[in-house]
Amino acid sequence: MLQVNQIAPELQVETWLNTAQALSLASLRGRVVVLHAFQMLCPGCVLHGLPQAQAVRAMFSERDVAVIGLHTVFEHHAVTGAEALKAFLHEYRINFPVGIDMPSSDHDVPRTMQAYGLRGTPSVLVLDKAGVVQLHQFGRVDDMRMGALIGTLLAEEAPQLDVQAVSSNRTASNSQVCDDEGCERPSE
Amino acid sequence: MLQVNQIAPELQVETWLNTAQALSLASLRGRVVVLHAFQMLCPGCVLHGLPQAQAVRAMFSERDVAVIGLHTVFEHHAVTGAEALKAFLHEYRINFPVGIDMPSSDHDVPRTMQAYGLRGTPSVLVLDKAGVVQLHQFGRVDDMRMGALIGTLLAEEAPQLDVQAVSSNRTASNSQVCDDEGCERPSE
Amino acid sequence: MLQVNQIAPELQVETWLNTAQALSLASLRGRVVVLHAFQMLCPGCVLHGLPQAQAVRAMFSERDVAVIGLHTVFEHHAVTGAEALKAFLHEYRINFPVGIDMPSSDHDVPRTMQAYGLRGTPSVLVLDKAGVVQLHQFGRVDDMRMGALIGTLLAEEAPQLDVQAVSSNRTASNSQVCDDEGCERPSE
Amino acid sequence: MLQVNQIAPELQVETWLNTAQALSLASLRGRVVVLHAFQMLCPGCVLHGLPQAQAVRAMFSERDVAVIGLHTVFEHHAVTGAEALKAFLHEYRINFPVGIDMPSSDHDVPRTMQAYGLRGTPSVLVLDKAGVVQLHQFGRVDDMRMGALIGTLLAEEAPQLDVQAVSSNRTASNSQVCDDEGCERPSE
Repeated sequence: MLQVNQIAPELQVETWLNTAQALSLASLRGRVVVLHAFQMLCPGCVLHGLPQAQAVRAMFSERDVAVIGLHTVFEHHAVTGAEALKAFLHEYRINFPVGIDMPSSDHDVPRTMQAYGLRGTPSVLVLDKAGVVQLHQFGRVDDMRMGALIGTLLAEEAPQLDVQAVSSNRTASNSQVCDDEGCERPSE
Repeated sequence: MLQVNQIAPELQVETWLNTAQALSLASLRGRVVVLHAFQMLCPGCVLHGLPQAQAVRAMFSERDVAVIGLHTVFEHHAVTGAEALKAFLHEYRINFPVGIDMPSSDHDVPRTMQAYGLRGTPSVLVLDKAGVVQLHQFGRVDDMRMGALIGTLLAEEAPQLDVQAVSSNRTASNSQVCDDEGCERPSE
Repeated sequence: MLQVNQIAPELQVETWLNTAQALSLASLRGRVVVLHAFQMLCPGCVLHGLPQAQAVRAMFSERDVAVIGLHTVFEHHAVTGAEALKAFLHEYRINFPVGIDMPSSDHDVPRTMQAYGLRGTPSVLVLDKAGVVQLHQFGRVDDMRMGALIGTLLAEEAPQLDVQAVSSNRTASNSQVCDDEGCERPSE
Repeated sequence: MLQVNQIAPELQVETWLNTAQALSLASLRGRVVVLHAFQMLCPGCVLHGLPQAQAVRAMFSERDVAVIGLHTVFEHHAVTGAEALKAFLHEYRINFPVGIDMPSSDHDVPRTMQAYGLRGTPSVLVLDKAGVVQLHQFGRVDDMRMGALIGTLLAEEAPQLDVQAVSSNRTASNSQVCDDEGCERPSE
């Protein structure tokens, strides 16, 4: 799993929505980046993760904080493609850029999800201005904690970082299961 | 619009999910029927309507109260077909029977939705033991009110009904719009 | 404890607020009665019980349903007397009649609370039109369930009652403890 | 009204609860200070303000952030004295230090409330490490915003502050009125 204090590797994206041009993490240096990995049919994403991402977008300026969605589908691929996702984003009024995670040639789990070691959806990563991971959490993040972390990172000039990631007490299971909090990907 | 105190005409359903055999309203006489019309990409349905339908299902016995979903799609047809709906029902753990409203040959609005004059999704209809409409509401219904209506209807021997439908103060608009409460179908 | 299917004995009240004249359960025959026992400094009462009582008051007509508060103080007597309670009811905009449970001469627990065997606050009792207890619950009651019970009782002509009380899984403890759900009185 | 970018004058407190010794703002330099002004019978304080103060207390270390309550009573003085407040704090499990605002000799509004120009309760002030006001708001503050402000202030070495206070759009009225958001003090 991509750890706190590591530089986040580039996203591997098949298609970008809600943006005229492809994004790269490198181009976002100098801004705090909030990356929400979700699936359009994941209840925890719809009920908690995406509303929080929208609240972050509404509260901070785009100049300071970049909010990016990553559609990391590891099940139901046939019915959650780009056209379905576009309809979903339209109905839920999600306006920030969303990248569709690049499919693997040999695996249900797409490439960024694999590279980052995401445990499932929703997963949120917060990167500092230098692109270093300061939070990597599967499941729900408290609004006040999210605000505090972003506020701390915004105040930093240079990436002298000591914010601790919130540890998750979930344990991996053998088959994908969704509950109100999230959907875990299957163990490999 | 199908009015309170009218007998609900039969559902026109293309495919039934979560049930071994097709349902008819006629076969449900003697039970209170709660019919939730929804679309899988309608935020108001996902946030309010369907959770309430699940709460009704959990609170009353199947012998007393039938809970039925009706997937009444009037937009995004291409990405909300039977396979997509099956994945949605699986992820949201919706186990009561759901009928897919029969498509019209010449109109985006499917047949039961037209016949009932549904204004949009979520719409909920509550039928008494005689199949007579006792509530027909577009948008959100308060849980206590829903409970009170079902409780009243359950206590009835014969359909001497005087429960008033809650009037809605929404007005129709010219184009389909979703907000947190629901999605209105376009005017015709 | 006052059981379901028993006739509720009369309230023993020291002072009535929000009503010009004293109430008696006998005078309320023919109406469903919702009786909320609370303490003004009980968090569960303030957060859940009293808002639900206000919702019942707002939803049903006074002709059909009587909502009554009972201030059953078993601790902090010195600072929760009639004047304090009046200020509380004013600030929380509670307008239904509230009786102050008659103090015991030899016990912290007041008389109605003793006679009814209330386990603590909030406790809610629902009486049918004949004054028979149909629900006696310590702690939180679901809004839909409350609505369903009232609706059922309203539909009854005569008190042929079979509604089951919701059993509580709390166990009594030796000392009064408040949590988010309620305050339990001490064991005797 | 005490403005953003002003140094907060010292609290004028009659009695301190939940602390062995009196606090002074001067002694808290170097920490971020979150000051919640409340009344024990103010619904907005009980429902929103105090739970947020408790969440701040739970999220940040006492070494970094001081959370202080200020009981600023401007009505119902007779029933909200120190003994009543102690019972309230006990039942609501509020453990951070709470000062009772010093009564005025000639006015219902106590001294700190007057000196700070508080509009009513709940009011929250956030002071940076140098004791300079960075937020002064009457009514509800969003959790994410509160977190972001504290996070920003924690990251600061020296008090070079540019965080803007959230402007409130409430207007003063002639008589004290409580609603779900708060209680406004009367105009003078």
